[in-house]
Amino acid sequence: MTTSADLARNYSVTLPEWVLEEVDKLDGPLTTDADKARFTNVLARRNHLEGTGGPFAALVLDSATGEIVSVGVNLVLDSGLSSSHAEVVALSLAQVRSGGWDLGADPAVGRELIVNWRPCAQCYGALLWSGVTRLVIAGDGPEVEELTKFDEGPMRDDWIAQLETRGVSVSIDVLRDEAIEVFREYGERVAEGKVIVYNGRGTGPVVAD
Amino acid sequence: MTTSADLARNYSVTLPEWVLEEVDKLDGPLTTDADKARFTNVLARRNHLEGTGGPFAALVLDSATGEIVSVGVNLVLDSGLSSSHAEVVALSLAQVRSGGWDLGADPAVGRELIVNWRPCAQCYGALLWSGVTRLVIAGDGPEVEELTKFDEGPMRDDWIAQLETRGVSVSIDVLRDEAIEVFREYGERVAEGKVIVYNGRGTGPVVAD
Repeated sequence: MTTSADLARNYSVTLPEWVLEEVDKLDGPLTTDADKARFTNVLARRNHLEGTGGPFAALVLDSATGEIVSVGVNLVLDSGLSSSHAEVVALSLAQVRSGGWDLGADPAVGRELIVNWRPCAQCYGALLWSGVTRLVIAGDGPEVEELTKFDEGPMRDDWIAQLETRGVSVSIDVLRDEAIEVFREYGERVAEGKVIVYNGRGTGPVVAD
Repeated sequence: MTTSADLARNYSVTLPEWVLEEVDKLDGPLTTDADKARFTNVLARRNHLEGTGGPFAALVLDSATGEIVSVGVNLVLDSGLSSSHAEVVALSLAQVRSGGWDLGADPAVGRELIVNWRPCAQCYGALLWSGVTRLVIAGDGPEVEELTKFDEGPMRDDWIAQLETRGVSVSIDVLRDEAIEVFREYGERVAEGKVIVYNGRGTGPVVAD
């Protein structure tokens, strides 16, 4: 029978070196929403080209200054952990740096999450529990599932209102076309068999109402 | 300005020693759903008494044999990471032990997730991407939010049907009263000021339709 000696006791996620290189190419804080979105698109594109994960990136920023608190990319392939989506990586690394599970612990310091598309079902919940007070996304339509073949999971139609009820404001459609271009390029590489779509059980999007 | 040297690059979650002690007290595989649920209740209760996290525990089991693949408890307080709910811990540790992000990669080996209540919004998505093919829970009603003051987040009314569409079967109401008793004891400790409810921004359940 199974004993404790058989079990894994630790899991761990580490940013690839190339993410740090991209941070050091920036020449200042990300002060406009377009600056923020542009950087997530750079990271998302490089992530799938590097083979570390899907075409998704996220940032946690100090809302007042635009200084980067943390950076995340989707590391499912690199880490072997299905939960290590860009948002979970960025939120977790922000919590490591800040020293705790509540990024909103100091009400005088607003923290925002920038992502290159609407969060999936998992990351929607993850952002709710993180303490961020603002979400900025490039878009929220079906384009990601259509172009990349990822399943984003069942979401409530009122998902934005539910965030706002919990004190998280939402800004949508920041550099939308540029974000879609990254997904289009990724989709072409999927069609050419150059990358893996890593949905559970290898399935594409599931359509269900 | 922020450079890569300022950033956290790694996050990590480790099971407390006492969880391993509890595994080694078992005298065989967990072959019935009641056996499985009973063990999650033991772990959930000890977790809040130890102060490592909320009253939640999860197991990943081999469906055919009842052998334990991994064990998780809520480690938000212990790890300082808001995503480290019991389900994410158990799924991640199962993936570390199995060597990959898809617990359903071998269709001949079914893996099931046992939890002492309905997953929250985040963990609902996390289980979708993990590759497990069965979910066993003690219950799915409002009792957890009422007794513990946790916000479980916005869920779709058809959340079970959405899982089944994606190949995950669901069994509910296994040792329901025993699970509720753990939440009741936890809620009493919250009322006495002995534990922290660690929702983002320190809020209790948010009611919104």
